[in-house]
Amino acid sequence: MVKVGIVGGTGYTGVELLRLLALHPEAEVVAITSRAESGRRVDDLFPNLRGHYELAFTEPDVQQLAACDLVFFATPHNVAMNLVPQLLAAGARVVDLSADYRIRDAALWSRWYGEPHASPELLAEAVYGLPEVNREKIAGARLVACPGCYPTSVQLGLIPLLARGLVDPDRLIASSASGVSGAGRQAKIDNLLSEASDSFKAYGVSGHRHLPEIEQGLSDVAGQSVQVTFVPHLLPIIRGIHSTLYAQLHGGDTEDLQALYQAWYANEPFVDVLPAGVFPQTRTVKGANRCQIAIAVPQQRDTVVVMTTIDNLVKGASGQALQNMNIMLGLPETMGLQQVGLLP
Amino acid sequence: MVKVGIVGGTGYTGVELLRLLALHPEAEVVAITSRAESGRRVDDLFPNLRGHYELAFTEPDVQQLAACDLVFFATPHNVAMNLVPQLLAAGARVVDLSADYRIRDAALWSRWYGEPHASPELLAEAVYGLPEVNREKIAGARLVACPGCYPTSVQLGLIPLLARGLVDPDRLIASSASGVSGAGRQAKIDNLLSEASDSFKAYGVSGHRHLPEIEQGLSDVAGQSVQVTFVPHLLPIIRGIHSTLYAQLHGGDTEDLQALYQAWYANEPFVDVLPAGVFPQTRTVKGANRCQIAIAVPQQRDTVVVMTTIDNLVKGASGQALQNMNIMLGLPETMGLQQVGLLP
Amino acid sequence: MVKVGIVGGTGYTGVELLRLLALHPEAEVVAITSRAESGRRVDDLFPNLRGHYELAFTEPDVQQLAACDLVFFATPHNVAMNLVPQLLAAGARVVDLSADYRIRDAALWSRWYGEPHASPELLAEAVYGLPEVNREKIAGARLVACPGCYPTSVQLGLIPLLARGLVDPDRLIASSASGVSGAGRQAKIDNLLSEASDSFKAYGVSGHRHLPEIEQGLSDVAGQSVQVTFVPHLLPIIRGIHSTLYAQLHGGDTEDLQALYQAWYANEPFVDVLPAGVFPQTRTVKGANRCQIAIAVPQQRDTVVVMTTIDNLVKGASGQALQNMNIMLGLPETMGLQQVGLLP
Amino acid sequence: MVKVGIVGGTGYTGVELLRLLALHPEAEVVAITSRAESGRRVDDLFPNLRGHYELAFTEPDVQQLAACDLVFFATPHNVAMNLVPQLLAAGARVVDLSADYRIRDAALWSRWYGEPHASPELLAEAVYGLPEVNREKIAGARLVACPGCYPTSVQLGLIPLLARGLVDPDRLIASSASGVSGAGRQAKIDNLLSEASDSFKAYGVSGHRHLPEIEQGLSDVAGQSVQVTFVPHLLPIIRGIHSTLYAQLHGGDTEDLQALYQAWYANEPFVDVLPAGVFPQTRTVKGANRCQIAIAVPQQRDTVVVMTTIDNLVKGASGQALQNMNIMLGLPETMGLQQVGLLP
Repeated sequence: MVKVGIVGGTGYTGVELLRLLALHPEAEVVAITSRAESGRRVDDLFPNLRGHYELAFTEPDVQQLAACDLVFFATPHNVAMNLVPQLLAAGARVVDLSADYRIRDAALWSRWYGEPHASPELLAEAVYGLPEVNREKIAGARLVACPGCYPTSVQLGLIPLLARGLVDPDRLIASSASGVSGAGRQAKIDNLLSEASDSFKAYGVSGHRHLPEIEQGLSDVAGQSVQVTFVPHLLPIIRGIHSTLYAQLHGGDTEDLQALYQAWYANEPFVDVLPAGVFPQTRTVKGANRCQIAIAVPQQRDTVVVMTTIDNLVKGASGQALQNMNIMLGLPETMGLQQVGLLP
Repeated sequence: MVKVGIVGGTGYTGVELLRLLALHPEAEVVAITSRAESGRRVDDLFPNLRGHYELAFTEPDVQQLAACDLVFFATPHNVAMNLVPQLLAAGARVVDLSADYRIRDAALWSRWYGEPHASPELLAEAVYGLPEVNREKIAGARLVACPGCYPTSVQLGLIPLLARGLVDPDRLIASSASGVSGAGRQAKIDNLLSEASDSFKAYGVSGHRHLPEIEQGLSDVAGQSVQVTFVPHLLPIIRGIHSTLYAQLHGGDTEDLQALYQAWYANEPFVDVLPAGVFPQTRTVKGANRCQIAIAVPQQRDTVVVMTTIDNLVKGASGQALQNMNIMLGLPETMGLQQVGLLP
Repeated sequence: MVKVGIVGGTGYTGVELLRLLALHPEAEVVAITSRAESGRRVDDLFPNLRGHYELAFTEPDVQQLAACDLVFFATPHNVAMNLVPQLLAAGARVVDLSADYRIRDAALWSRWYGEPHASPELLAEAVYGLPEVNREKIAGARLVACPGCYPTSVQLGLIPLLARGLVDPDRLIASSASGVSGAGRQAKIDNLLSEASDSFKAYGVSGHRHLPEIEQGLSDVAGQSVQVTFVPHLLPIIRGIHSTLYAQLHGGDTEDLQALYQAWYANEPFVDVLPAGVFPQTRTVKGANRCQIAIAVPQQRDTVVVMTTIDNLVKGASGQALQNMNIMLGLPETMGLQQVGLLP
Repeated sequence: MVKVGIVGGTGYTGVELLRLLALHPEAEVVAITSRAESGRRVDDLFPNLRGHYELAFTEPDVQQLAACDLVFFATPHNVAMNLVPQLLAAGARVVDLSADYRIRDAALWSRWYGEPHASPELLAEAVYGLPEVNREKIAGARLVACPGCYPTSVQLGLIPLLARGLVDPDRLIASSASGVSGAGRQAKIDNLLSEASDSFKAYGVSGHRHLPEIEQGLSDVAGQSVQVTFVPHLLPIIRGIHSTLYAQLHGGDTEDLQALYQAWYANEPFVDVLPAGVFPQTRTVKGANRCQIAIAVPQQRDTVVVMTTIDNLVKGASGQALQNMNIMLGLPETMGLQQVGLLP
């Protein structure tokens, strides 16, 4: 039985880790920290967990966490980068769900997050935890930076096109839409039901923090720098990201692209290329660690459209974090991640 | 490995059975029937099932079904009562999720369903599949009538009060609210998103088909006939039933009632009495086979209020059906039913 | 042209007053106050108002407000009771949308609001602004206390039964459900879309602040004290209140009750008794200053069920406030209040 | 008082015409037809209209309709093109909300709608009813083809860029999202709340019927043929269209584009260019005849992003139809169309 610690368990990625780990046959949560809720039972804060956990939140304690086989950071950015160095020094292995170790370039990170990076010396070591790209590196890593939700949905959709050099890397467009849970469990007027439901809007158009992460990942795949126009939108639902990706084809036809995608992801347990003509819906991946993808070339012109869906809290966060854990600890990659999407 | 058949798998209780059975370690679905969709893969109709099933819908076939260890009917009423006699004769055991065998009195059934009952001779044998009441009878049953969604939520809430004779049995009120999936996967204008979302209404006020089932079950528990004013409402959500139950106390105080409920359901794996002062939400049981219950006596007057929540497709239908299957086949009652509610 | 001031315009009742007043042919908003947003244009905060107002929020100023023909308080409780005395002294007339002047008994008010009342000397003078009950008194009032949203929906539903003495006044049940906008435009985790959408729950079961207001109003009508079990619920929608009211009939039959209700409200412009067998929906009154009512006696037993719907921000708040203003200023009562419900 | 007839009043554009016309001071609805609902009162089908109309649906009658000053067709495609010739011959003027007269090329129309056009001789005469482009022609027209909802949102967003020749006309992308009411009031499983809510998906990717209409309108403006990749998406809300439009700039900077858009639409009563940095939301135009627009050039690169919102049933259908009526009949263009968006 693997011992797991969670730093910062009061947010949505925290409760989602607990939901998934409750059914993981080889992992046991032994510590979950929260300064604000220290002493409170987790199932008091999250009544869906009643009967599944006896745990209470505790103050973070390096020794206790270092005794775990793996520690998840389900914190806002700026927490992990201050605490992870001590944990690694104490022998722990870490999966960080926050943004702290996703960008390799400390200066770039600082520009987007508005502060210096607290442990830049770890950026080169941290492995970007997209298993479909970095599976081997993840297996041996001490520190994995779990990808952002939007970046997961955008990268999985564009990787085959860019890896094969089929599209113009300077004219990529990612029109993405996310459920509100992506904004976290924070008291903000903008995310009230009365403000965010029954509506749809773009936001962060001039520049969203996931943009440099997307461009870094896609540049790696393309072998050259890429430019993405990334426009996130807010959906009046809790869970789900849908990315509609547009690229200019150098050439090629529909059938080949469908075959390319199916072959590319044939052995990936959590990427599901849909049959030609079927388009993904966020509801079919709700609660599941899965990315569904469709590809189309409307009117046989030269703009290719790729559509992807994930549950932002699962394949976009906590499910992917568990997938990374499984790989790091030598467990079967799909263990505890077989939940079927909740449809309807 | 237990072999399972499903008659009528294209509705919401059908896909929900498939979702739950996909994770059941001892059951395998070997047949799923649909006249309308015969030949079509189930994961083509329900893409959340991709990767979990290779099955296609088939025409119902008595021999094939009878070879199963257990057959579920996930059909509208009026199907099971015509086909079950043949299946029982052929040696099958059946869990019927429809209303066909829930009412013991064939005349009463006919009055509410507007047609004669096709196999009234089985009504005495059919066991009402509420495990919290009939666990032993279910274990030995050939035919189990799985309770309706509203009746499950109302009965579990009122049973302790009525069994103890604490309230007036002639003045019971059940103000219930259900998500739209309870209306099934049928093309009706009233259930369009444009009609049913962003709204709330009562319906079936003069008499809903679940009323006689509720009164039958509660009368059994009370040991005398009861009268319930049952007003169902339509919630603008997909899943979830919340029942707010009102009864006139003969006497008693809050603390005793809380203790009574906790004791009554102490050993029930799927009934969760919340701490005093905590009220149930449909979201904390979404996707889970669970009924959460709270009890209160506002202003220390003599009206007691009981609140219950279930997921109408799980504890209100397919989850409860699996619970019955587990009991009938001697499997651990909770097997395959440990999913945590999907919160947020 | 009537000059109107609004104190506290940054909440939902404030923006709703502005929406309705934009189309009122005889009223002009000349001042709208907010300490927090002073200097900001109202259409910057609420872009739906662009093109309709050039106003900016200002600090509250007694002289400026007193120069208005009428001042609305669209504030949380505890603001009006401190400022209204000065405004009245300066010659203003006031419609207070908050709870400060709704309860005649200062001690009772203090018990529910947890603080002493700041201007108890005005409680006897303040007129409870339910036009269907107090139209004449409102016409001559200096200070009108606009009813709460739940109390409006409950009282309009029960008044005919209680006025005629047809039901047991000690066994009234109000099972009400409100959209989230009733909780106001405040940053609270409980009202986030991720918390409150896709769910339903009861709250305030042990005692909601609208209970004493409901019981005071109904006792006036009944001519004796009444007891109401009031259970509010939270709907995953923005606007709308549905109250399902249960009472024990002394006797009487369905047809009479339908006729009674139609006759009772025959001349009320904003109360609409639906035809027998038609039940109200919150969506048909969305955005409209209207209460729709249905009455039924299920199974011809002795429990009567009354269902009412209002838009909590219109007939439950800002629309009713305008209705009061029209009456106070001698304008046609329906002026500026003819909007049709936004369906679908 | 202008006499108005409506052909096909049982759909969402029909009830929306009635909602808006109820407040129009110079128009009176004298006939509303429906074969299916003939004899039924309109306020029985749509209870939000109670108190506003005494009308009942009737069988379509050419003479009665021809006696109207203006006839709206709120029908599916394929109705108007068969009936309009008789009405025009009888002297009526027509605003057709359906697709029948939107495409000038009968062969192109047939290709997309799968049948021959029934009155191609009228296509040259029909005026495309986008007042921001064709105001003068509309004034004198006998037959106006009211634009589709998506085409309205896309054209208003791209017109200034294309008219000025600032972007590549062959690389336009329209990523649009619509509420479900755009699919009409038809009993289809795909549009059930249980199917369409709590989800998001693209559809019609290979080719949506609004594509040729969009390309025709934009080609007119550009003075050359344009190519649009148009991907519509389904939002889990009732009303609202948000279009996110992407184009490749030949050159130019943010400030100029903001100024261009503000100047271009300065005199348009129903097009509202938002201040720089403010992005439109569907909720701020809900129920209002308004298009809100924002423009941005993310990261100062060469892709321009334009965002537009409309209420698909108002500026995308019935409100625009009234705007056309006002223009045709010499009434003030804004008459009856001043409703403020319903926020929250």
